[in-house]
Amino acid sequence: MLNTIKKVAVLTSGGDSPGMNAAIRSVVRTCVFHGLECYGVYRGYQGMIEGDFEKMDARSVKGIINKGGTVLKSARSQEFRTKEGRQKAYDALKKAEIDAFVVIGGDGSFTGAMIFNQEFNFPVMGIPGTIDNDIFGTTHTLGYDTALNTVVEAIDKIRDTASSHNRLFFVEVMGRDVGHIALNVGVGAGAEEILIPEEDLGLDRLLESLRRSKQSGKSSSIVVVAEGDKIGKNVFELKDYVEEHMEEYEVRVSVLGHMQRGGSPSCFDRVLASRMGVKAVESLLTGKSNYMVGLKNDAMDLTPFDQAVKGKSKINMELLRVSDIMTI
Amino acid sequence: MLNTIKKVAVLTSGGDSPGMNAAIRSVVRTCVFHGLECYGVYRGYQGMIEGDFEKMDARSVKGIINKGGTVLKSARSQEFRTKEGRQKAYDALKKAEIDAFVVIGGDGSFTGAMIFNQEFNFPVMGIPGTIDNDIFGTTHTLGYDTALNTVVEAIDKIRDTASSHNRLFFVEVMGRDVGHIALNVGVGAGAEEILIPEEDLGLDRLLESLRRSKQSGKSSSIVVVAEGDKIGKNVFELKDYVEEHMEEYEVRVSVLGHMQRGGSPSCFDRVLASRMGVKAVESLLTGKSNYMVGLKNDAMDLTPFDQAVKGKSKINMELLRVSDIMTI
Amino acid sequence: MLNTIKKVAVLTSGGDSPGMNAAIRSVVRTCVFHGLECYGVYRGYQGMIEGDFEKMDARSVKGIINKGGTVLKSARSQEFRTKEGRQKAYDALKKAEIDAFVVIGGDGSFTGAMIFNQEFNFPVMGIPGTIDNDIFGTTHTLGYDTALNTVVEAIDKIRDTASSHNRLFFVEVMGRDVGHIALNVGVGAGAEEILIPEEDLGLDRLLESLRRSKQSGKSSSIVVVAEGDKIGKNVFELKDYVEEHMEEYEVRVSVLGHMQRGGSPSCFDRVLASRMGVKAVESLLTGKSNYMVGLKNDAMDLTPFDQAVKGKSKINMELLRVSDIMTI
Amino acid sequence: MLNTIKKVAVLTSGGDSPGMNAAIRSVVRTCVFHGLECYGVYRGYQGMIEGDFEKMDARSVKGIINKGGTVLKSARSQEFRTKEGRQKAYDALKKAEIDAFVVIGGDGSFTGAMIFNQEFNFPVMGIPGTIDNDIFGTTHTLGYDTALNTVVEAIDKIRDTASSHNRLFFVEVMGRDVGHIALNVGVGAGAEEILIPEEDLGLDRLLESLRRSKQSGKSSSIVVVAEGDKIGKNVFELKDYVEEHMEEYEVRVSVLGHMQRGGSPSCFDRVLASRMGVKAVESLLTGKSNYMVGLKNDAMDLTPFDQAVKGKSKINMELLRVSDIMTI
Repeated sequence: MLNTIKKVAVLTSGGDSPGMNAAIRSVVRTCVFHGLECYGVYRGYQGMIEGDFEKMDARSVKGIINKGGTVLKSARSQEFRTKEGRQKAYDALKKAEIDAFVVIGGDGSFTGAMIFNQEFNFPVMGIPGTIDNDIFGTTHTLGYDTALNTVVEAIDKIRDTASSHNRLFFVEVMGRDVGHIALNVGVGAGAEEILIPEEDLGLDRLLESLRRSKQSGKSSSIVVVAEGDKIGKNVFELKDYVEEHMEEYEVRVSVLGHMQRGGSPSCFDRVLASRMGVKAVESLLTGKSNYMVGLKNDAMDLTPFDQAVKGKSKINMELLRVSDIMTI
Repeated sequence: MLNTIKKVAVLTSGGDSPGMNAAIRSVVRTCVFHGLECYGVYRGYQGMIEGDFEKMDARSVKGIINKGGTVLKSARSQEFRTKEGRQKAYDALKKAEIDAFVVIGGDGSFTGAMIFNQEFNFPVMGIPGTIDNDIFGTTHTLGYDTALNTVVEAIDKIRDTASSHNRLFFVEVMGRDVGHIALNVGVGAGAEEILIPEEDLGLDRLLESLRRSKQSGKSSSIVVVAEGDKIGKNVFELKDYVEEHMEEYEVRVSVLGHMQRGGSPSCFDRVLASRMGVKAVESLLTGKSNYMVGLKNDAMDLTPFDQAVKGKSKINMELLRVSDIMTI
Repeated sequence: MLNTIKKVAVLTSGGDSPGMNAAIRSVVRTCVFHGLECYGVYRGYQGMIEGDFEKMDARSVKGIINKGGTVLKSARSQEFRTKEGRQKAYDALKKAEIDAFVVIGGDGSFTGAMIFNQEFNFPVMGIPGTIDNDIFGTTHTLGYDTALNTVVEAIDKIRDTASSHNRLFFVEVMGRDVGHIALNVGVGAGAEEILIPEEDLGLDRLLESLRRSKQSGKSSSIVVVAEGDKIGKNVFELKDYVEEHMEEYEVRVSVLGHMQRGGSPSCFDRVLASRMGVKAVESLLTGKSNYMVGLKNDAMDLTPFDQAVKGKSKINMELLRVSDIMTI
Repeated sequence: MLNTIKKVAVLTSGGDSPGMNAAIRSVVRTCVFHGLECYGVYRGYQGMIEGDFEKMDARSVKGIINKGGTVLKSARSQEFRTKEGRQKAYDALKKAEIDAFVVIGGDGSFTGAMIFNQEFNFPVMGIPGTIDNDIFGTTHTLGYDTALNTVVEAIDKIRDTASSHNRLFFVEVMGRDVGHIALNVGVGAGAEEILIPEEDLGLDRLLESLRRSKQSGKSSSIVVVAEGDKIGKNVFELKDYVEEHMEEYEVRVSVLGHMQRGGSPSCFDRVLASRMGVKAVESLLTGKSNYMVGLKNDAMDLTPFDQAVKGKSKINMELLRVSDIMTI
């Protein structure tokens, strides 16, 4: 295998996250370092189907390590979900004499790569890029650490105004079906309560907790709500419910939204992206395929795609306890 | 008058804004500098009614120049809108032997101060503190410059993700009935369109503009919407309308919300607050009353409260033209 | 004149500053808006001499409004200071059929443009780009506001560690021969003393001021020193002197250095750059030449190059007084 | 032991770092949670000797989780290095009926705690707080992650100006005798070369590397130099040497200095501090003493003080290789 890989493609797929550009840079430069050619694929699998490739060298990726988003653009491709679409993608790769690809994205992107690998026996590697940290096989996905800082800084700002008035804020944060972001920013921003999908607090206990917080002398409160949490139908209904049942607070809602996905990556994410890119390319060179690169115990690690896709990324339950203690 | 003022109170009222703490610090230290006693009033006019005063000295305000929010807290007081409420406030001030007050806030706060002054012939001065920049008599209100930077940084982050996909974002920003924030951040963040209350673009021209932007080769677009704009009933309905009439874009909405009110003040706001605090106290010492301190042509200036309250803070129409040119 | 200008060149010259890219973008797009061709000149006057031009359109400048530095690069050119060098530059411009240029830079750059204009009667306009704010004819140069925020944030960080120990910090900031940056960040960061070239405090009064500050109960002190200040031979000798004469403090020095020149421009600088670019191009179109665009009383203004170059940019003496009061 | 601990003291010692306040808050609130009294000790061991204690409750530590520095102040104490000093400290603790203390600091602080524990059999626990990450027994010290981001953002700014001119920058970063900060920010900021104490590159190879970098088409270069690196006598002499031997670059030096120690802690550091505080207090409650709390494999861990003090914190050699590949 080692000798058969001469040209490697790299693409970003699914939602973008900070650190994707640093990972692209790393894949490209590792290819150059090992004497491989590297091609960027624009707009994810859709661009692969359309043969939207561009040859990249070490200089093509200069000045992007600190940029959010992805210079290769990203997209969701319905066509790649069909056999015909994948066949077109394979044909385009073959036509360009590309021997392997590295996909930077989330579990949907890895499922696509896994099926593609099964169908065409085409060497593929994955790098987990999503702010949600919802992927099994790595303690950190690219962009997660950056998003934590972005959200904590935003909540710090909200805290300024909350504590100047007598206010309770529900702050909705991203994270899809998992509570990683909510739990960590909740602890990091000193939230009075954290609502995550992994734990059903219940409306009664929420009210009780808010009343206790008020009685303990706090003049303002922040409740961090994971977007995947189901305690209320949504955060605005939660607000209505609490306002109906508590008169102690003026209640406000803030949905932080897409700014959480952007921004210059943190040092951690830039370093992680650099390490993952090297690992992905060098794993391909040693004949490995169908794996996701991950971080485990501070070292690079490989997880087979089927495990990465099926597995569950679990939140740190110790943190829930820490949060309970901190909000005394 | 000069000799009659020995004790000055300072309060923050209405919505908080970055720079209020720097202004409190300045009022306190200017009092100390001139041998006056200074009292902080907690929770705005409501705290004044309740006699919630605290003596402050130069050290009381250390370490707050760079903090968002207001250490004196703020509140809206229904009671102060009544003659009885104001009488109580006057009694509380008299009991504490306070001779004058400086109120940091918006036009509602100044109206209150003006009426109070008329009723009790009590010396009052105002410092404009609001991110909205909607006050006549000053080119900049405290917190406005900071908010511009906060919003521009947030839109930069949204731009990262917008340009990685094929997306149109409607970003709603604060500003009450005026378009100052929207217009400036729109130009500063390179928005493709800016919707402000001062200009009725109309839905047809918005669609036309977005189509032209798309055709000119832009892969993503940001539209900044002032909260006071009335083009759609609200920004979510605007989204629905555009999605119905354009298929070229995936449309997303982001309501930046209360994070715009917080954060460490910019250097400009800290310096402005320091200047305004000095001007407010020294104006009282020269016998002036019933004025708002403002910035005009980079110099400190005074505007009578009745003008400040009745006047209109106008947006810079030149900027609208600059925006049109920039989005070619 | 209006009809004779068809092609406009734009260049950045001298030290770079945040907002230069936003100004380049504005010049290019204003040209496109008015049906003119626009050429970017790389590496300032040196690139002009070498004919290092590139045609730019509206899309060439996308995504740069929020980037520090200058995409056109900058350089200092010895050759342009000679008649021969300027002749070469003129020949290169003529060969490319360029009719006018806009130079973004400081007083050295404007002197060059003025001489060039005199020698070849070639239409030129200037946009003031420098963090130092040392140019006559504008209250703000591009990058100045950004630098103030960068420096204030850095000093806030230094304050964290200074106030955790018993320390006196001398923080040297940029500004060439003027004290604009030092004075404003000194007030904005709550410095205990500000040393600027415009005011000779003297070593004795500095010591006296530091002792008074110590006695007033301050546990730490920040002294902001303008790089152009001459109180000590340099900031390290100043440290030695103070350590010799005061035992109350552990003294530390921090020279902030070139990070002050970089970073994403503030909203203010982006808007100012956009306005200045429009004004520069449209002034050329109305037949004006040999002027610098500036900001006066919040409006765009023109100052003849010879005045801009000879004039003195004065610091706001009111601020010195505000600083004295604040450090009580 | 469990029953004997009723009052716990907490102090910060040595150099301060971001996250110390979050750790203080966590120790205090964990004490309250478990029904213990908690006392803050001001100015480290010196304050302990002087009995400078203050009772703290849950509200005493509100609003500090996001603040840099330490509200308890820090100091280095010569007196505590003597038997007499430690005896005085013990007497002061006994007089205040304090049963145990948690010290937040670096290896010097832990050595002091260890000796104190040996002499008086007094329960002590340590929390590693230093930006240098130079402590054995934890993958991350408090403040390290924050410092990485602070430094990377500063270098990003320097890169703006470096790449606008033709410049080589030597950027000196903190880290005492280890290269953790330099290595990570070097990779994270895309430095062309990284000089750390753990690897002796040699001046010849540095020049060679810089020449290769120049030839590969890079117009500017950043070299990150750890303060503990010994390749030149110091970074200014390094600059002189390179300028003498290479004409290709204008060389500049930036010593980032003490701003690296300050700033609002990152989300990671706030969460880590919260976890460590809980672990420290609860370990004391289970009868443990003389340990440092650490992070290993993303879980809380204990390391005996003698190991923490004697051990060596090793840099990740994989990262050196990643850096080599990235700078191709």
